[in-house]
Amino acid sequence: MQDPSHQHRGPGLPSPSVREAASMYGTAVAVFLVILVAALQGSVPPENPFPYRILLDPQGTLELSWNVSYVQQAIHFQLLVRELKAGLLFGMSDRGELENADFIMLWTNGDRAYFADAWSDQKGQIHLDEQQDYQLLQAQDTPDGLSLVFRRPFATCDPKDYFIEDDTVHLVYGILEQPFPSLEAINTSGLQTGLQRVQLLKPEIPVPKVPADTRTMEIRAPDVLIPGQETTYWCYISELPQGFARHHIVMYEPIVTKGNEALVHHMEIFQCAGGFESFPHFSGPCDSRMKPERLNYCRHVLAAWALGARAFYYPEEAGLPFGGTGSSRFLRLEVHYHNPLKIQGRRDSSGIRLYYTATLRRFDAGILELGLVYTPMMAIPPREPAFILTGYCTDKCTELALPPSGIHIFASQLHTHLTGRKVVTVLARDGRELEVVNRDNHYSPHFQEIRMLKKPVTVSRGDVLITSCTYNTEDRKLVTVGGFGILEEMCVNYAHYYPQTQLELCKSTVDAGFLQKYFHLVNRFNSEEVCTCPQASVPQQFAAVPWNSFSRDVLAALYGFAPISVHCNKSSAVRFQGEWDLQPLPEIISTLEEPTPRCPASQAQRPPGPTVVSIA
Amino acid sequence: MQDPSHQHRGPGLPSPSVREAASMYGTAVAVFLVILVAALQGSVPPENPFPYRILLDPQGTLELSWNVSYVQQAIHFQLLVRELKAGLLFGMSDRGELENADFIMLWTNGDRAYFADAWSDQKGQIHLDEQQDYQLLQAQDTPDGLSLVFRRPFATCDPKDYFIEDDTVHLVYGILEQPFPSLEAINTSGLQTGLQRVQLLKPEIPVPKVPADTRTMEIRAPDVLIPGQETTYWCYISELPQGFARHHIVMYEPIVTKGNEALVHHMEIFQCAGGFESFPHFSGPCDSRMKPERLNYCRHVLAAWALGARAFYYPEEAGLPFGGTGSSRFLRLEVHYHNPLKIQGRRDSSGIRLYYTATLRRFDAGILELGLVYTPMMAIPPREPAFILTGYCTDKCTELALPPSGIHIFASQLHTHLTGRKVVTVLARDGRELEVVNRDNHYSPHFQEIRMLKKPVTVSRGDVLITSCTYNTEDRKLVTVGGFGILEEMCVNYAHYYPQTQLELCKSTVDAGFLQKYFHLVNRFNSEEVCTCPQASVPQQFAAVPWNSFSRDVLAALYGFAPISVHCNKSSAVRFQGEWDLQPLPEIISTLEEPTPRCPASQAQRPPGPTVVSIA
Repeated sequence: MQDPSHQHRGPGLPSPSVREAASMYGTAVAVFLVILVAALQGSVPPENPFPYRILLDPQGTLELSWNVSYVQQAIHFQLLVRELKAGLLFGMSDRGELENADFIMLWTNGDRAYFADAWSDQKGQIHLDEQQDYQLLQAQDTPDGLSLVFRRPFATCDPKDYFIEDDTVHLVYGILEQPFPSLEAINTSGLQTGLQRVQLLKPEIPVPKVPADTRTMEIRAPDVLIPGQETTYWCYISELPQGFARHHIVMYEPIVTKGNEALVHHMEIFQCAGGFESFPHFSGPCDSRMKPERLNYCRHVLAAWALGARAFYYPEEAGLPFGGTGSSRFLRLEVHYHNPLKIQGRRDSSGIRLYYTATLRRFDAGILELGLVYTPMMAIPPREPAFILTGYCTDKCTELALPPSGIHIFASQLHTHLTGRKVVTVLARDGRELEVVNRDNHYSPHFQEIRMLKKPVTVSRGDVLITSCTYNTEDRKLVTVGGFGILEEMCVNYAHYYPQTQLELCKSTVDAGFLQKYFHLVNRFNSEEVCTCPQASVPQQFAAVPWNSFSRDVLAALYGFAPISVHCNKSSAVRFQGEWDLQPLPEIISTLEEPTPRCPASQAQRPPGPTVVSIA
Repeated sequence: MQDPSHQHRGPGLPSPSVREAASMYGTAVAVFLVILVAALQGSVPPENPFPYRILLDPQGTLELSWNVSYVQQAIHFQLLVRELKAGLLFGMSDRGELENADFIMLWTNGDRAYFADAWSDQKGQIHLDEQQDYQLLQAQDTPDGLSLVFRRPFATCDPKDYFIEDDTVHLVYGILEQPFPSLEAINTSGLQTGLQRVQLLKPEIPVPKVPADTRTMEIRAPDVLIPGQETTYWCYISELPQGFARHHIVMYEPIVTKGNEALVHHMEIFQCAGGFESFPHFSGPCDSRMKPERLNYCRHVLAAWALGARAFYYPEEAGLPFGGTGSSRFLRLEVHYHNPLKIQGRRDSSGIRLYYTATLRRFDAGILELGLVYTPMMAIPPREPAFILTGYCTDKCTELALPPSGIHIFASQLHTHLTGRKVVTVLARDGRELEVVNRDNHYSPHFQEIRMLKKPVTVSRGDVLITSCTYNTEDRKLVTVGGFGILEEMCVNYAHYYPQTQLELCKSTVDAGFLQKYFHLVNRFNSEEVCTCPQASVPQQFAAVPWNSFSRDVLAALYGFAPISVHCNKSSAVRFQGEWDLQPLPEIISTLEEPTPRCPASQAQRPPGPTVVSIA
């Protein structure tokens, strides 16, 4: 990584309070850059200041590093541009589109070069931002390319700017191949562009100590030839040594084969089900017809990593148990290769390095599945921009299944299938929403990472956990029902917690009888015939609904009113004892508000307009 | 009115770029004020710069004047404080509450006095605003009291600040009786406070010429003794001279008896129905049992004024016809006295001065009633914070009833009963919302004035006019149905337009058959019995609905889906020929967005914190 503190100071600067001049590209391709330092109140961060790093484009020419200051409520970015052409844009947008995006522009009119805060309208047309919220701190030529260091507050209170929150951020970039007379002459549709998803605001958690007797184990792809296609999920079965005793995983980290950083998108290790003597060995695409059927029983998450994430540490008092009797020796590694350029012949041995100890920690960690039961009874009408489904873990279940001292959720992985756009889990007590367990208002099914919570959430007996997912089915003509299929939907929050309890899942679905009332009602209202014959399956009944604003609104009203069936289970099949059908929906009398931007108190650091980067 | 350009400049100021010092109260009651001018980029407006004026409190000790600069997107306020105690607050809030309000504070800690931008939280606790958006331009002692001149942009992009829009603004004030050690020591609940409603952003319309032969006629209360009670609507029947020919009203203006400015809240002149030979004379409270029944037929609006409004001018090419054959000679004046202090013995002769001409203008002006039919079929469930009902004037009706060149709406008066909180009319063409005719997101049933539109709206044949009202029934235990009663609801926009057409009202209601389907459906869903027997009236059926989230949501879904019955009428009883029942709801494929604040480009004029006002 470039060290931005080694600046080449330019000669003959008029005064330290004036922005230092810098030199840039002579032609559109060759770069002769010396320096630019905007000597405003901001300053370049100290040595090795960017703990997070990601490649933005599949070619790996744009490397982004950043740090987060919660005190300043700001991010410092370092963007390393390996082969600068005539300029670039980098920024963020709601879901990775280049329209309605907020970004910095580095561009030249062939004569001078400029850096500025800009934005694109709904047609992709670029405009200079009236309020300049990206503050350029350094522009420096390095052996690896041009390094830009700039600062951006989380919130700017400029309606043209993206509000950076804890959740997924869709970073966007674009390459300018030639000079433009002005910013307004540029439309993003004419540029080579792309997106990368990342959690920018990583939590600031002290790294827990790792015990002295920690050992490591690498679960890696066996020198896989990455297929020359955009998307591959590679499945590889690995196994623990015979007689491998019970251990605690205390941390894990990614191993990405050098050169493949832009291709390896995410990796997960699943433990296979304990009931089987053995699992067949396999290494191939997960959707291969050659993949043994039994591998579908390897679904218990042991470790998960996604692009931009660093090592995952368990809290000092807990570890994830693996090995020992009753636990399967078989592990499934899944690697998602994202290869939009369809590069051929690249070999890969990426994987995850597990750090584990035989000295068991005080608590076993566990994973609790929250959200919706996998059932077609929870369905999303077609052509909906933002339909919400909600699953409940009720007070009755937490009362029964949690220990008297409660449990501590320290990490969370959100999960939906293709139409998921937002996921949130909220903790409620006595009818009042108290705390967000995890929220992602920019959730993408293509970016599911386990995230450490900024602050662990304690769930006590009698608490309610409410998980809501927002779906976009605008491009679907048919109803989307809940289920396991990739074209069906899920709404899940895998909550990582300790101490482990017997409670493996706490989810809900609408009551089946009330859903039948819905089908009858819609049938009455619309002259068309809805199949309500008892032998029709729920998906068939949903498929027969004439979708219009009334059938949609009444379905939403039903889900917000009808009693629920609760799955308060020890495993996916074994319920805790009790009456779990026809349960009332938890009543919520006060809800939490959506986060609002905290505007920076002082605007003193804002430059008034574009920063000129003079040509050498 | 005080002229703020006559400043007493203080002696010995260090430099003109430093804020000039000012002197203020020696004790909490006596005021010895010299000057304060914040010599920032703002400046005090020129002579007679405040065209709008209102008394804030019923005692008349706080007089607010203001002007509007659409170029600067800012308002200059002049607040005249007649009997300053230890300070005051003045500002705005969503609906006139003192919690979550945005205001200026003038306060003293007994030692020094300060002016600052502040806000109150949901508990009424006052805080200094981190971003100071009210800029003090002048503080000056005058024979009438302390005059403060300050400036505020419409939008500040500070989430603590009120966004000033075209619609009703609820101004709030509070009186500080004693010094406070700090702002944070003040809670609004401990102060004498009040509210006043006004449209701050009056449109900037050139005053049309009034013809040379214009004559005036005053319709005034006959020396009324204002009752010593909070609310009185006074009704007075007046009449035009025998044989009074057809004239055009070209403008009118309020006449408010001197000293009663804080008591006279609004006034309207209604013309009685043409069909009656005569109307009995009457002068008394409108709700008096002595009021003749026939006065209920005096409902055709001729002129309307409300607090803070100035003269109303018709466009140069149009006038409101009155007089002549077929038109009633009888007029009803209604004066709303708002007397919260229950002042006794005050006499009043306020009224409206009509300016009219015998030289008829090119066009007769007319009034078109838009919104909902007065029917119990349109109902609002109880306990709702914001339930929306919508009435449609369909393309079929405008196609049939409007002239080929369309009509021009130049003014609008919104109307609901007690639970109305927002009203908006939007014009749509070919399924796309094009333009807002009139919108009030801070509508109050206690402040219904005729407002000139900033820009006249042309309605063409085939256009659709959609009027939506938002109601708050949180304090009601029973359903609220549509109707004439004060506890029933209306949703009306009286659109003032020209050229006059035969179309007097264009409104809608849900189809009666679909509403019966709703009652059946709710009956099926809930185990409770809903009276659906044919002899039950619609109000009885609504009263029997068990109100819960499902019956509410399904009612809203019904109103958003079911076909409508359209009243496309020449008068309240005579429809245009055609089929008006079971009409499809207008389909809207693109909607207008709510206005978003345009943040000021430069923050240079913002003071960094409170302005000290030194004691003389």
